[in-house]
Amino acid sequence: MSNPTAIMLVIGNEILSGRTQDKNLHWVGSQLSEIGVRLIEARVIPDIEPVIISAVQQASKAADYVFTSGGIGPTHDDITTECVAKAFGVPVIRHPQAQAALEEFYTDKSMLNEARLRMANVPEGAELIPNPISAAPGYRIENVHVMAGVPSIFQAMFAHIKGTLKHGAAIRSTSTKVWVGEGSIAPLMGKLQKEYEALDIGSYPFVQNNKVGTSVVIRGVDEAAIQACQTKLQQALEELNILFEDE
Amino acid sequence: MSNPTAIMLVIGNEILSGRTQDKNLHWVGSQLSEIGVRLIEARVIPDIEPVIISAVQQASKAADYVFTSGGIGPTHDDITTECVAKAFGVPVIRHPQAQAALEEFYTDKSMLNEARLRMANVPEGAELIPNPISAAPGYRIENVHVMAGVPSIFQAMFAHIKGTLKHGAAIRSTSTKVWVGEGSIAPLMGKLQKEYEALDIGSYPFVQNNKVGTSVVIRGVDEAAIQACQTKLQQALEELNILFEDE
Repeated sequence: MSNPTAIMLVIGNEILSGRTQDKNLHWVGSQLSEIGVRLIEARVIPDIEPVIISAVQQASKAADYVFTSGGIGPTHDDITTECVAKAFGVPVIRHPQAQAALEEFYTDKSMLNEARLRMANVPEGAELIPNPISAAPGYRIENVHVMAGVPSIFQAMFAHIKGTLKHGAAIRSTSTKVWVGEGSIAPLMGKLQKEYEALDIGSYPFVQNNKVGTSVVIRGVDEAAIQACQTKLQQALEELNILFEDE
Repeated sequence: MSNPTAIMLVIGNEILSGRTQDKNLHWVGSQLSEIGVRLIEARVIPDIEPVIISAVQQASKAADYVFTSGGIGPTHDDITTECVAKAFGVPVIRHPQAQAALEEFYTDKSMLNEARLRMANVPEGAELIPNPISAAPGYRIENVHVMAGVPSIFQAMFAHIKGTLKHGAAIRSTSTKVWVGEGSIAPLMGKLQKEYEALDIGSYPFVQNNKVGTSVVIRGVDEAAIQACQTKLQQALEELNILFEDE
C-alpha cells in the first residue's frame, strides 16, 4: 500500500501509571483512516528525557508523520519541547508569535509568569500549530507534530494540521454483525482473506444480551473489492444458516 | 528505584485503525501500580509478523515483565502465538491441557473445529494462564505473559498471574484538586519537586463547570514523604490564597 504512514507518541507518566486514560490514540486512529494515512504504531512513554529523545528520533525515521501528545504545559514535568529540540539537534527558542498569543490570552498580566511563558518555547525552526482553546501552541518540526495532551486541545490542533497532511486513498470499511463465535466462521474468513489479499479482514468478538457474536470488519482502499468481499461473506453466511446483520 | 519494571504490548490492527478503543493498558497500569511494578512503556502494534517478533524480543530484554493483549483467537489474523514462538526460537506445540480445556468448554463437539483447536497452540515450554470465561488459555513464556484482547478475559488472566509477579514497594499517590490553572502553581510545584526528588509530582489540568483547575498528584513509594510533601503543598496553597480540596 502506498498510503502515507504515521506513528503516535503518547508522552506522560500519568498514562502509564493508570491515573489517566488516553483518549487521543483512538481518536487520531480514526481521523487518519479517514484521510488514508496508516497509523503503523503507537507508543506510550514516560516523561524521561533520553526515552523521549530516542522515541522521537526513531519514529521520525520510521514513518512519514509523527504525532505526539503531552508534555508541553507549564510545569517542571513538561519536558517534551526540550527533548524534541535535542532529538533534532537544535536549540530551544522563545517564539515571538507564540508569546504574543499568550499575552493576548492572559489579559491579567500577573497570570503570565515565567512558567506560562515557557509554553512559548519551541525548537528552532518549528512552525506553530495554533491552540484556539488556551493559546499555548503546538508546533511542527520536520515530520513531527507536537501537540497537547488534553483531548479537546489535541483535537483542535489536529484539525488545524489535518489539511496539511498528504492524503492516501481513504481507508474504508464495512462491518457485519454475525451471531456466532468467531471460531465458527474462522475457516470462511481465512478463505476470504486469501481471495482478497489486498483487504484486511478482521473479526472482533462481542457479547450482547448474553449472546456471543463476532463483528467481521473488511477494510481497505478498494471500495469495489470491499463490496464484493462483503457480498461473498454474507452469501456464505446465508448458506451456512448463520444469522447476521449489517453494522 | 528498585521496583520491577514492565512493558505492555497491545497487539491488533483494530486499535491502530481507531475501530476499537484499548481498555487494557489503562487497567493494567493501575493494577501494576498497586503491586509496585513500574510500567515503563506501552506499544500498540499491528498484526504483522516481523513487527510482533521484534517488539516481543526488545520488550523481553528491556523489562522484568512483558504483558501482551490480543491476537490469540481462532482466526487467520490471530498470529501472536506463532510470533512469540519465533521470538524465542521455539516451535509451536498443541498443549494437551489447553486442548482438554477447550474440549470441556465446547460440549457441542461440532463447534470445536480446527480453527478453535488452534487456540490450544502455545510456544514450546510455555506455562498456561487459565481463561475462566471462554476456556482458550493465555500463557507465559520466560518473562512474557500472552493474554487475550477482550478486556474481561484479559483481566481474568491478569488476576491469575498477579500473585506470581515480584512485588515492589507499592506505589502510592495523593491528589489535590486546585482551583487555578497549572501555570499559576508551576513555580510552587517545581520547588516541591526539587525538595522531594524521590517523589513524582504531576499536574493535570481539567475544566469542571466552566472553571479551570489542576489536579496535583504526588506519587512514590515513601508514604511519609508523600504526606509531608502534600502538607507542604497545601500549606503553600493556603498562603497563596488558592482554593483547593483533597481528591
